[in-house]
Amino acid sequence: MNEKEPTERFKRGLAKLKEIDGEAGEKVIESLKDIAPDLGRYVIEYPFGDVYSREGLDLKSREIATVSALTAMGNATPQLKVHIHGALNVGCSREEIVEIMIQMSVYAGFPSALNGIFAAKEVFQERDEKGLSDS
Amino acid sequence: MNEKEPTERFKRGLAKLKEIDGEAGEKVIESLKDIAPDLGRYVIEYPFGDVYSREGLDLKSREIATVSALTAMGNATPQLKVHIHGALNVGCSREEIVEIMIQMSVYAGFPSALNGIFAAKEVFQERDEKGLSDS
Amino acid sequence: MNEKEPTERFKRGLAKLKEIDGEAGEKVIESLKDIAPDLGRYVIEYPFGDVYSREGLDLKSREIATVSALTAMGNATPQLKVHIHGALNVGCSREEIVEIMIQMSVYAGFPSALNGIFAAKEVFQERDEKGLSDS
Amino acid sequence: MNEKEPTERFKRGLAKLKEIDGEAGEKVIESLKDIAPDLGRYVIEYPFGDVYSREGLDLKSREIATVSALTAMGNATPQLKVHIHGALNVGCSREEIVEIMIQMSVYAGFPSALNGIFAAKEVFQERDEKGLSDS
Amino acid sequence: MNEKEPTERFKRGLAKLKEIDGEAGEKVIESLKDIAPDLGRYVIEYPFGDVYSREGLDLKSREIATVSALTAMGNATPQLKVHIHGALNVGCSREEIVEIMIQMSVYAGFPSALNGIFAAKEVFQERDEKGLSDS
Amino acid sequence: MNEKEPTERFKRGLAKLKEIDGEAGEKVIESLKDIAPDLGRYVIEYPFGDVYSREGLDLKSREIATVSALTAMGNATPQLKVHIHGALNVGCSREEIVEIMIQMSVYAGFPSALNGIFAAKEVFQERDEKGLSDS
Repeated sequence: MNEKEPTERFKRGLAKLKEIDGEAGEKVIESLKDIAPDLGRYVIEYPFGDVYSREGLDLKSREIATVSALTAMGNATPQLKVHIHGALNVGCSREEIVEIMIQMSVYAGFPSALNGIFAAKEVFQERDEKGLSDS
Repeated sequence: MNEKEPTERFKRGLAKLKEIDGEAGEKVIESLKDIAPDLGRYVIEYPFGDVYSREGLDLKSREIATVSALTAMGNATPQLKVHIHGALNVGCSREEIVEIMIQMSVYAGFPSALNGIFAAKEVFQERDEKGLSDS
Repeated sequence: MNEKEPTERFKRGLAKLKEIDGEAGEKVIESLKDIAPDLGRYVIEYPFGDVYSREGLDLKSREIATVSALTAMGNATPQLKVHIHGALNVGCSREEIVEIMIQMSVYAGFPSALNGIFAAKEVFQERDEKGLSDS
Repeated sequence: MNEKEPTERFKRGLAKLKEIDGEAGEKVIESLKDIAPDLGRYVIEYPFGDVYSREGLDLKSREIATVSALTAMGNATPQLKVHIHGALNVGCSREEIVEIMIQMSVYAGFPSALNGIFAAKEVFQERDEKGLSDS
Repeated sequence: MNEKEPTERFKRGLAKLKEIDGEAGEKVIESLKDIAPDLGRYVIEYPFGDVYSREGLDLKSREIATVSALTAMGNATPQLKVHIHGALNVGCSREEIVEIMIQMSVYAGFPSALNGIFAAKEVFQERDEKGLSDS
Repeated sequence: MNEKEPTERFKRGLAKLKEIDGEAGEKVIESLKDIAPDLGRYVIEYPFGDVYSREGLDLKSREIATVSALTAMGNATPQLKVHIHGALNVGCSREEIVEIMIQMSVYAGFPSALNGIFAAKEVFQERDEKGLSDS
């Protein structure tokens, strides 16, 4: 599968990744370069180039969906933190992030909600320290 | 724990349950009456009386969060279908439901997304047959 | 691995399986005979011959643990129903089964609790129809 | 939802939280104060004020259920450790905790059982260092 | 995202889907046509056009990986059955499928293994009835 | 259950454990000695003495199954790392490990795949530092 991939999806995906996840997203791709560069390319192409670039559901709602799912599954804390950043970057307020976690206490149990809150707390502190403004 | 519960949470919750889940929600409570009536009361009080009644995140976003989480976990199809109805009742379009499922293919895998779509298909057909209008 | 297995674990396990799960347990083993008889043997030897035969935690508590775990995971309804029978066979009351499900609403969310209750409802009805007495 | 909540559930829940989880439980509530105080309040009210305060299943059995579920799900180690403490506080022996983990090897696989044991090991060491006596 | 997608990935994916999943795979795509045709296209493009078309791991090993994962997760029975067919189509024997399920008893617990076996049993019967030969 | 266990299964299992997991496997058993020695014995007897010792599926395929399942479940990182070592010890190449993770992006979502890759990266580095050759 070494043919040059169509650069359209990749370019669109890379722009979308930067828009949503900013520096955190690029670090993930960077960390894949020496071990699984094709997975890095796929992350850009399919989730960002295809899915996040779709119409039909606004970016803020897509991040609400993602933060909810990752909080409920409770087995992917690094990605949850990247997407709490992402949600704040595309229009969620900190209050809305907290409300998503409270909502998850109903559907995935209180431990998932608590661990979601603790992830959010770390993200909020990191943004304060770096002077990142929420959208 | 037989003291009369404060009726405020219960009343608020029952109204919220009807607003969101309509007939499907009331059927769930009804089905608990002979085996676990207190669980039925808790469903009304905590998820609906407390959580869905909160400010800080609009009802449509709460249902996007719920549908996403249940699709990602993939182990609660009856509740997923109730909340696809719920999402359509409080402002989601069918297109938005489909987009949530596509979004989940990224975070919980394609099988979860496919099973989410098949649940949505059943809900859409049921609404068509009953002449239920989406919001 | 065709050497004759030590019959001690197998015999002890089969007796334990009958004590706990009764007819339902034997049906599971029966259903494996034509496709995976060794898995049937392992089910008897390891879970029942080794684990359930241990001292240090009484049988009723072991079934509380099992029913809780299967309700929380929410992806093994047939086994959950076998073990609701099992719990009732070794000393749990129907009320205690219901309380376990309510307890799970806290740790695995309300959908898991509801689906646990619906499984219990089917088991209770089956026992009533068959005239099975709880322990 | 700013009306003053009925203090009955909250008071009962706080007493129950202290009885079961002791210091560890209070720390969790404390850690929520600056980010999600309402979630802290809900933790006290629903799980402890409503559920753990119910009759029909003794506290020790409730903690067996909780430790089993959290071990099986395997995605909430901090809460698992709090509830291993809780189980020991309300009447479980260390031997019973170990047996619960062995029981989970059957229903959730050996990795869940092993990670449960490693969590228990840390809790036992912490209790030894602090001179906490088991119940 | 209505630009014409590069047909290379799609064509390659469709051929791969037919090679692996045969009729069952095409039925899945067909069932998406009226509700989520783009998800059908993505299924062909990303899993089959990109991933299954990669070198570095043979098709039989890819299906062993897939059947194992779906058995362990235990929340996607229809897809598990499609991929048991797939595994048999690309070189797995029925005995190997059974061994995968036994292997899963160790890592995901006996209920997941049992439900995997029951899914395999249905697939084997369906193949016998249709006169499908295993590879 | 203090009768002397048949040493056949134990001996066979210990040899298999050393063959597959090497030093990492023995460390796990060692770490159980003071808290749950019987669980250590069971790990040797059932997974290794019974399951891995079976014919019908070669060791390399068994490790592909295990690494896939643990990556998909995403809640047992220490065991995933032990089995990435195991897979490399019994015939998988590093490239094949990476391909398994890419395969999992389809069935368990991109976060599971990414966390699988990061676990693999740590294992590969550890092997380089220790001068461990892959098989």
